[in-house]
Amino acid sequence: MIFRQLFDRESCTYTYLVGEEKAKVAAIVDPVREHVARDLQLIEELGLRLTHIFETHVHADHITGAGELRKLTGAKSYVAREGGAPCADVPLDSGDVVNVGEVEFRVLATPGHTSDCLSFVVGGDRVLTGDALFVRGCGRTDFQNGDPGVLYDSVTKELFTLPEETLVYPGHDYHGRTVSTVGEEKRHNPRLGGGRARESFIALMNSLDLPPPAKMAEAVPANRSCGEI
Amino acid sequence: MIFRQLFDRESCTYTYLVGEEKAKVAAIVDPVREHVARDLQLIEELGLRLTHIFETHVHADHITGAGELRKLTGAKSYVAREGGAPCADVPLDSGDVVNVGEVEFRVLATPGHTSDCLSFVVGGDRVLTGDALFVRGCGRTDFQNGDPGVLYDSVTKELFTLPEETLVYPGHDYHGRTVSTVGEEKRHNPRLGGGRARESFIALMNSLDLPPPAKMAEAVPANRSCGEI
Repeated sequence: MIFRQLFDRESCTYTYLVGEEKAKVAAIVDPVREHVARDLQLIEELGLRLTHIFETHVHADHITGAGELRKLTGAKSYVAREGGAPCADVPLDSGDVVNVGEVEFRVLATPGHTSDCLSFVVGGDRVLTGDALFVRGCGRTDFQNGDPGVLYDSVTKELFTLPEETLVYPGHDYHGRTVSTVGEEKRHNPRLGGGRARESFIALMNSLDLPPPAKMAEAVPANRSCGEI
Repeated sequence: MIFRQLFDRESCTYTYLVGEEKAKVAAIVDPVREHVARDLQLIEELGLRLTHIFETHVHADHITGAGELRKLTGAKSYVAREGGAPCADVPLDSGDVVNVGEVEFRVLATPGHTSDCLSFVVGGDRVLTGDALFVRGCGRTDFQNGDPGVLYDSVTKELFTLPEETLVYPGHDYHGRTVSTVGEEKRHNPRLGGGRARESFIALMNSLDLPPPAKMAEAVPANRSCGEI
């Protein structure tokens, strides 16, 4: 498996490229529209063909590159069935397994940041957590049907029950961190780790009082159309 | 081996943390002064003790965290013997092998960006290339005794002769790329790959006409003092 983490400095978004060398196919997770050329060049230089475009959720802080990538490559886009983007090709349900060549993407519903948030267990040893779980943090829960109690349950019952050595690759990082593990987050995540109680997490999240994301009014409708408007 | 790539968004510098779990020790490569607290917290949370601080060279674009880390932890700092920082504890020569627990750091002199540039082959399967080789690029060669012919020789004779599957972890990336391989750079690096001739590379580098790094006047003397002024 080829695995590449890619970064958008403006929104601090991580995009992931997963390649499978036997079948020479690739999947991309959470592509950013401004980096379509970078990502396609990398896929081509690696000798791969893009077949799958996954979104962890409908983003509020950047516009997806899914639509442009789909148009240029014929790859199919995959999003959550519930509350996701109607423009997508394939709806995903929790428990689905999607094969990218021989690499398995196992779908976990991890709502709470938004109601449509998915995580993907990839290749058995790593999980792409989108905005459900960050390195020492988590996504906010104050828009797009966000709900801190639901997020608490997603993280503690779905993500924290994965093997402790599972690598955690987040959807964003604002402090230059790239990866963690389930064990590390269980112990050291200041919002969700160390056995914090559900009510305490809910109170914390409800007290954050954050400004809305700068691009939200533009990004959410654009992403519900796969970035094609 | 624990391996963590860390990023400074301002200077686009990558810092690397390498931990060894048996001896519970850690090395850091190219720490940035503004991120000392982040890096120390991570080392502590991983249950490690910082013992080695490596610099790939005397940087012109950011101030090293080496001095502060050394003061706070007692770790030793390691830099190139020739042209490096007089403040450092241990001078390194090409071919040296430094053990961090059971993890080997093998030192390669890869001058050309500056005269003191080192690369480190870590754990046998990856190389930290500093500013000698970037993902699809390389460091500039127009200050601090930089020399494009020397850089060409470093990359083609030292780095490109490592096994093709060796992971390349650069000192910077300005486009959100995190890692590559020796094989990929041999084939696709637009400056040094595809069999480009030495004279052609020299002409290219001499034509770049770049502005000086914003922090150069401050950073170079500070880094020759391990960031302690």
